[in-house]
Amino acid sequence: MIEDIFDCVSPLDFRYYGRNEKLFSLLWSFVSERAYVKYQARVEAALVRVLAKRGVCSKQVASEIEGACSRIEVSDVYREEDRIRHNIRALVNCIRSDPAVSEEAKRFIHLTLTSFDVLDTASALRFKEATSQVIIPTLLDLEKSFIKIALREKDTIQIGRTHGQHSIPLTFGFAMAEYVSRLGNRILAIRKAGNNLVGKISGAVGNYNASSLFFDDPEEFEREVLHELGLEPADYSTQIVEPEYLVDYVHALVSCFGVLANFADDMRHLQRTEISEVAEEFKVKDQVGSSTMPHKRNPINFENVKSMWKVFMPRMTTIYMDQISEHQRDLTNSASLRFVPEILVGLVVSAFRLKKVCQKLIVDKKAIERNFEMSKKRIIAEPAYILLASKGHPNAHECIRKLTVQSLKEGRPLRDLIIESEELKPYLAKLTNKQQAILDDPSQYLGIASKKTEQVCAYWKQKLGI
Amino acid sequence: MIEDIFDCVSPLDFRYYGRNEKLFSLLWSFVSERAYVKYQARVEAALVRVLAKRGVCSKQVASEIEGACSRIEVSDVYREEDRIRHNIRALVNCIRSDPAVSEEAKRFIHLTLTSFDVLDTASALRFKEATSQVIIPTLLDLEKSFIKIALREKDTIQIGRTHGQHSIPLTFGFAMAEYVSRLGNRILAIRKAGNNLVGKISGAVGNYNASSLFFDDPEEFEREVLHELGLEPADYSTQIVEPEYLVDYVHALVSCFGVLANFADDMRHLQRTEISEVAEEFKVKDQVGSSTMPHKRNPINFENVKSMWKVFMPRMTTIYMDQISEHQRDLTNSASLRFVPEILVGLVVSAFRLKKVCQKLIVDKKAIERNFEMSKKRIIAEPAYILLASKGHPNAHECIRKLTVQSLKEGRPLRDLIIESEELKPYLAKLTNKQQAILDDPSQYLGIASKKTEQVCAYWKQKLGI
Amino acid sequence: MIEDIFDCVSPLDFRYYGRNEKLFSLLWSFVSERAYVKYQARVEAALVRVLAKRGVCSKQVASEIEGACSRIEVSDVYREEDRIRHNIRALVNCIRSDPAVSEEAKRFIHLTLTSFDVLDTASALRFKEATSQVIIPTLLDLEKSFIKIALREKDTIQIGRTHGQHSIPLTFGFAMAEYVSRLGNRILAIRKAGNNLVGKISGAVGNYNASSLFFDDPEEFEREVLHELGLEPADYSTQIVEPEYLVDYVHALVSCFGVLANFADDMRHLQRTEISEVAEEFKVKDQVGSSTMPHKRNPINFENVKSMWKVFMPRMTTIYMDQISEHQRDLTNSASLRFVPEILVGLVVSAFRLKKVCQKLIVDKKAIERNFEMSKKRIIAEPAYILLASKGHPNAHECIRKLTVQSLKEGRPLRDLIIESEELKPYLAKLTNKQQAILDDPSQYLGIASKKTEQVCAYWKQKLGI
Amino acid sequence: MIEDIFDCVSPLDFRYYGRNEKLFSLLWSFVSERAYVKYQARVEAALVRVLAKRGVCSKQVASEIEGACSRIEVSDVYREEDRIRHNIRALVNCIRSDPAVSEEAKRFIHLTLTSFDVLDTASALRFKEATSQVIIPTLLDLEKSFIKIALREKDTIQIGRTHGQHSIPLTFGFAMAEYVSRLGNRILAIRKAGNNLVGKISGAVGNYNASSLFFDDPEEFEREVLHELGLEPADYSTQIVEPEYLVDYVHALVSCFGVLANFADDMRHLQRTEISEVAEEFKVKDQVGSSTMPHKRNPINFENVKSMWKVFMPRMTTIYMDQISEHQRDLTNSASLRFVPEILVGLVVSAFRLKKVCQKLIVDKKAIERNFEMSKKRIIAEPAYILLASKGHPNAHECIRKLTVQSLKEGRPLRDLIIESEELKPYLAKLTNKQQAILDDPSQYLGIASKKTEQVCAYWKQKLGI
Repeated sequence: MIEDIFDCVSPLDFRYYGRNEKLFSLLWSFVSERAYVKYQARVEAALVRVLAKRGVCSKQVASEIEGACSRIEVSDVYREEDRIRHNIRALVNCIRSDPAVSEEAKRFIHLTLTSFDVLDTASALRFKEATSQVIIPTLLDLEKSFIKIALREKDTIQIGRTHGQHSIPLTFGFAMAEYVSRLGNRILAIRKAGNNLVGKISGAVGNYNASSLFFDDPEEFEREVLHELGLEPADYSTQIVEPEYLVDYVHALVSCFGVLANFADDMRHLQRTEISEVAEEFKVKDQVGSSTMPHKRNPINFENVKSMWKVFMPRMTTIYMDQISEHQRDLTNSASLRFVPEILVGLVVSAFRLKKVCQKLIVDKKAIERNFEMSKKRIIAEPAYILLASKGHPNAHECIRKLTVQSLKEGRPLRDLIIESEELKPYLAKLTNKQQAILDDPSQYLGIASKKTEQVCAYWKQKLGI
Repeated sequence: MIEDIFDCVSPLDFRYYGRNEKLFSLLWSFVSERAYVKYQARVEAALVRVLAKRGVCSKQVASEIEGACSRIEVSDVYREEDRIRHNIRALVNCIRSDPAVSEEAKRFIHLTLTSFDVLDTASALRFKEATSQVIIPTLLDLEKSFIKIALREKDTIQIGRTHGQHSIPLTFGFAMAEYVSRLGNRILAIRKAGNNLVGKISGAVGNYNASSLFFDDPEEFEREVLHELGLEPADYSTQIVEPEYLVDYVHALVSCFGVLANFADDMRHLQRTEISEVAEEFKVKDQVGSSTMPHKRNPINFENVKSMWKVFMPRMTTIYMDQISEHQRDLTNSASLRFVPEILVGLVVSAFRLKKVCQKLIVDKKAIERNFEMSKKRIIAEPAYILLASKGHPNAHECIRKLTVQSLKEGRPLRDLIIESEELKPYLAKLTNKQQAILDDPSQYLGIASKKTEQVCAYWKQKLGI
Repeated sequence: MIEDIFDCVSPLDFRYYGRNEKLFSLLWSFVSERAYVKYQARVEAALVRVLAKRGVCSKQVASEIEGACSRIEVSDVYREEDRIRHNIRALVNCIRSDPAVSEEAKRFIHLTLTSFDVLDTASALRFKEATSQVIIPTLLDLEKSFIKIALREKDTIQIGRTHGQHSIPLTFGFAMAEYVSRLGNRILAIRKAGNNLVGKISGAVGNYNASSLFFDDPEEFEREVLHELGLEPADYSTQIVEPEYLVDYVHALVSCFGVLANFADDMRHLQRTEISEVAEEFKVKDQVGSSTMPHKRNPINFENVKSMWKVFMPRMTTIYMDQISEHQRDLTNSASLRFVPEILVGLVVSAFRLKKVCQKLIVDKKAIERNFEMSKKRIIAEPAYILLASKGHPNAHECIRKLTVQSLKEGRPLRDLIIESEELKPYLAKLTNKQQAILDDPSQYLGIASKKTEQVCAYWKQKLGI
Repeated sequence: MIEDIFDCVSPLDFRYYGRNEKLFSLLWSFVSERAYVKYQARVEAALVRVLAKRGVCSKQVASEIEGACSRIEVSDVYREEDRIRHNIRALVNCIRSDPAVSEEAKRFIHLTLTSFDVLDTASALRFKEATSQVIIPTLLDLEKSFIKIALREKDTIQIGRTHGQHSIPLTFGFAMAEYVSRLGNRILAIRKAGNNLVGKISGAVGNYNASSLFFDDPEEFEREVLHELGLEPADYSTQIVEPEYLVDYVHALVSCFGVLANFADDMRHLQRTEISEVAEEFKVKDQVGSSTMPHKRNPINFENVKSMWKVFMPRMTTIYMDQISEHQRDLTNSASLRFVPEILVGLVVSAFRLKKVCQKLIVDKKAIERNFEMSKKRIIAEPAYILLASKGHPNAHECIRKLTVQSLKEGRPLRDLIIESEELKPYLAKLTNKQQAILDDPSQYLGIASKKTEQVCAYWKQKLGI
């Protein structure tokens, strides 16, 4: 038995469990082994409550067992499992041996259940509750940080970048609105998939063999037990719940992680020395940037999030493989299911990290302006070509392409070459004032960046109730 | 240029394209390169229709361009691309050079669009239409086959199997109902994700720079163009549509593939020589089972489906990686996007194959009965222990476990040992007739297998309208 | 800070760390965080030893620092890291603050190193040593178990199975020899890849900037430091070692895991109720097979191994993604590298589990014989067709195929139909005695199963020195 | 049957098959279906040659069959397969029906073989030959391009980059040497794994049942047949060759692809507008950079390579899953094996593309210098701290860190602050001239960049014989 956290192999437990944050102790209260066993005991307790309601056992019996369930100690269950080699039977034995459980009560424990009625239901329940109590709130906090930056910077003109090349203008707030929208969308997806997690009380192969011994309405009985826990039953189950509920849920988590990773990558690159439009704030006055290069300001949090995505995204493959279970179930998804909580941890740890960084994200407006200036002169290629075409030029794209090449060669502004061109004069004369203004000042070539930013933020604030 | 199909490297094209099936020529009309270019031309045509409606160009101009779009030849576009190295500009040039396009019309082609307005919209459209016209119908056909078998075999008593071990009874129809339910659920997921695919007409970096030169309501303009095609716009776009629409769509496909693979695995194992409860029918009288073992009846179609799942499931990883695109887009998702149609093909080919096999699936009821008989005697362990517990036995599970061990050792039926046991007599006396009957005839220990099968089938028939 | 192992999320630490086995405490002494920090301190110690050898610092200084390195406490390093936010600088500070380190000595700690000189070297070293001291010995133990079964069962006639269908005969020992061969091959691959792991002392971007300040032969200096640890330097390094050494190493582990998973699957299926040729022995007299089905004997260990493979195989994707690091390094492989030790754990835990099961694997010869009898009569199809062809029959395959169909229809032995056939008589007359014997007794159609088994076992015993 | 290449779904065939390159027609001659069938026929031909050598059939017979094998038409085989539903039996029938094959000869075709003797051997052979004739030569060409750039730029001072931040100096040639080394290493890995591919002639379940009917030395017989083809036999085989040979081979390909992807990413980022140290040359005077932004120079080839890596890297997961095949084989690796040649194509297409770009890679030395100048002043932080420490300063790292912060705040060169510091004077006085020179001119802080570049290039030129 490992006794010191630093004797562990999992960095989640000894390293990414943030030591000073309540969030993590809350999260671990759903994902730890202690939590899992407690949730299993909650299922056993729900069962006896319904048995009592239905008159199968007395209220006294139910009360005794419920009490025992609430006192279950994971270490006792493990000790018993070491002896008999069966985890749920070990749990049952521990409940049985609680001094408050009378002889009369013992036989009602676990009555009609199969192990995976307990385990699958407990898993669904803890994932569902971790989702609503930790994952969604953490993501909402991050979303708020995104929205705050987006609105604050909605008019900060920035050069757009495609292929890593300067493209045409937008605003930094508009660029942030991408993440407001994508994260908002994923929050809804996770919320939905989390709420969609279901339990089962349908017995060893799913056709309610055992519960049918007692009840004519075993599906109704199943529903009652699960409702005690706030869950719905699966449409169909074998020994286990149909895997697609979990598959959709983990997909929602993993695809949300992809959004975080993309954001982290964008920020990493905007923090490059040559670009330096954003920066992570150093946390403490004693922080060391690099062991031998003290001048460096490294995007360590963004790097960490990208790295964690690389750790957790591939785990979806395990989940997809676990869709396949022979007949009424092989057990080859048993050990692998035990690693699913780690995926929740990876996402929360990363979202929380991003939130902290975003709350103090340094946006260097001078650098944004400086970079914009680099390409300002060439930006007008696009509006020029489009406007010329609209005014009747038969081959505007090719014409502007050639002038651009000339502009690069001669080092002269594209705008000047356009104005001087005899060929283009008749078309230029037809431009409206607003159109002319954009050719004169490309920083006005912004489309509806600011307005769209506001719209996106307002939409998600309303939609998510934040 | 490759000229003969057998000079190709992709088995999808030379091998899995079923030669005598209309379904495949229909499917390829969405996924081929020819199809892709046609869809791109449809987007260009939709654009000019809206330009005409808004009075930017004349109806005559729109009509000329639409005509040219409908005549686009993929080989011409490729030839032009070879020359100028840009696929969408090549398309535009081909439309321009159509003899029916007047000089006046030329300049309105592609006006305000960026390449990925065309490409992302065309991709969404062809995936959406392939979904509704090929994928969903093929899966519904398969679902019908599943339902037919499930209802036909709803009372065929079969031994349940967990861990590959005989467990407790169910019916073969109930086992099939698992796939009715899971496939039904995935059909809904695919339908929803397919309908959710969106387009974009928002320009090079997503803030409508170009269309804003002409319109005060560029988002409305985008909506009009997309509505011409039956699409909605993305909530937000950069140069490309937010990736999560596609990510969810491919997830729906891949997770559906997992259901097919699981079914295929179940059938493969039920077709094992020792089990032989089901068999694929041999297709033709000349079919060769094995080049050197002519007596073998191999589950080649089920094996093929499992194999194809192994090919296509990992491709989800590509899709997840493509969620990450720097700033307003890097182009590292360009080549990879071209492989997405293959995933649609993989799923349709496999679903179609399963449907064909299921329509003629041989179910050997004698074998099912023979296998059931093997374990009939030991089945009562579960109901016995549960009933004894319910009648007051304080430790029924342990008691029955010991009798089972004794039964195996002595080779005597468990039922006899139970009846002979002095310890158990008082509890047995309390059993109801129905409960007693199950101990006497374990094949009655079926729960609600038959009823649940009917329910599941009725539910999905109604839900899917089949 | 997590204080109780059951408050952890990683099942590796609280569950798969086998509580009563020395092997696991040994393994964790390489993979735990405590171990990692100790290895880092070993690198710092190696540095000062070489500095002293080269006269840069005194032997006294080196001795003081080495002493401090050997006393490093991981919890102190973490506390310091919490303060200054840099793990290696924290380590250096802890060494500095050791009371035995004199003022004079302090400045030599870490001299010329960059953080990843320490971290990459420490990682390589602990993986290399874990490989030789734990992974290889565990796999060799498993290999010995495989060999033992193979040799013991080399003449146990078993029906071969392809497509899950009975094929032609082999022996169970020959089937086991597959795993002797494949595991042997992977042991060599792991041993080689483990020995191939390298370190680096080449500074922040790999061109020995810092060490060149002191030495004219910085590559020789690097070699000396690494030789202190038993490592070779990378051919080339940036801030980090070329990733392919680790990529090859993890590939070796993961591909070995695939062999274990295949073996586990084979055994799972041979343990199916209908086949029941092998079985896991129940571990203790109190073991519970199923919470509600006490008669079941489940292949839980084989299932566990398959499940663990599903957990760990996909992690190769992380490793492949970590091959990509921008320029002289981005840090997006930093967190992910911390999860690599878990892969070693997964493999060892699974190999150890298999070894334990194999040592007591129950092989039911009667069942093997029973299953063989099922198909005995049809086996001769293959040798018959081949022999007839060799004796001059122009179309033997087709002829036997038809007789096989007839045999199935009429329920008569294929052998009788062959003998009765007028068409075949002239060819049968030409058979040698040995050939005739095989048609009479298909269980002699064994090729060189027994001899090949011996060969394979002898080869690997010699090759691996076991 | 698809008749036009643009009706295909696979972009490999209609798009990435470079139309004007001999390389691609050569590559496809190994990977196409036509090629596969030809290789299968080569195995059948090798068989009869050995049968004749051993006197089983006459030389005349062997010659007739060999002739027929050389004339096999893939379309004929497919037509026959459509009829009898078995691909290898279809091949055999086609050989049989060749007019030059006499009645006497017919019965020796395929004698003793099982289908996968032919298929696995043919696969191994075509992968092996594609490797030596296409893959390795293409990679060697790329390696030469890398070496050429590395040597040319070995003294081009460039700022090193870690975390995307300017770090300390190196040379561009040294940065290129990373890829010389990593690619060189992968070329060796691929060559080795390619040469390691093996065949098998061991029959339906691997114990030489059929060949033992004729030969006392069936393993020798196998060796002879395979030697005809230039292959070695597998150590052990079931119906198929042990999968690890192929697993190692595809791993070598995929891990090589990772090196190309990393190189492509580095170049993409160096081509960013703000950095612009390198650029892809535009291919033709008519090339269009962007449909609406004609001024852009996009790294489309580097993007393509990264994108292709995202397509092909995940396919390793399929290969790992195919390690698992039940008993003497299930056939769930049959379809998936057909997709393996695509991986070869992906790698060759990408390596060839990179080679073309590298041959004309534009290196902008002014931009490299300009970027270096940005950080020149702060570079000395690292050498300063190290030198001060070595000269006796007790806490140099912390001291320089503080001066760096001061330098950033006050906008003054770090070097001036160091020189002015009273605290540091005694240590500075001890510096050697060479050490002093580096503090004065950080561009001399290059370590052995140039020399190491030469070494690495020389090593790989010699090692690879280029």
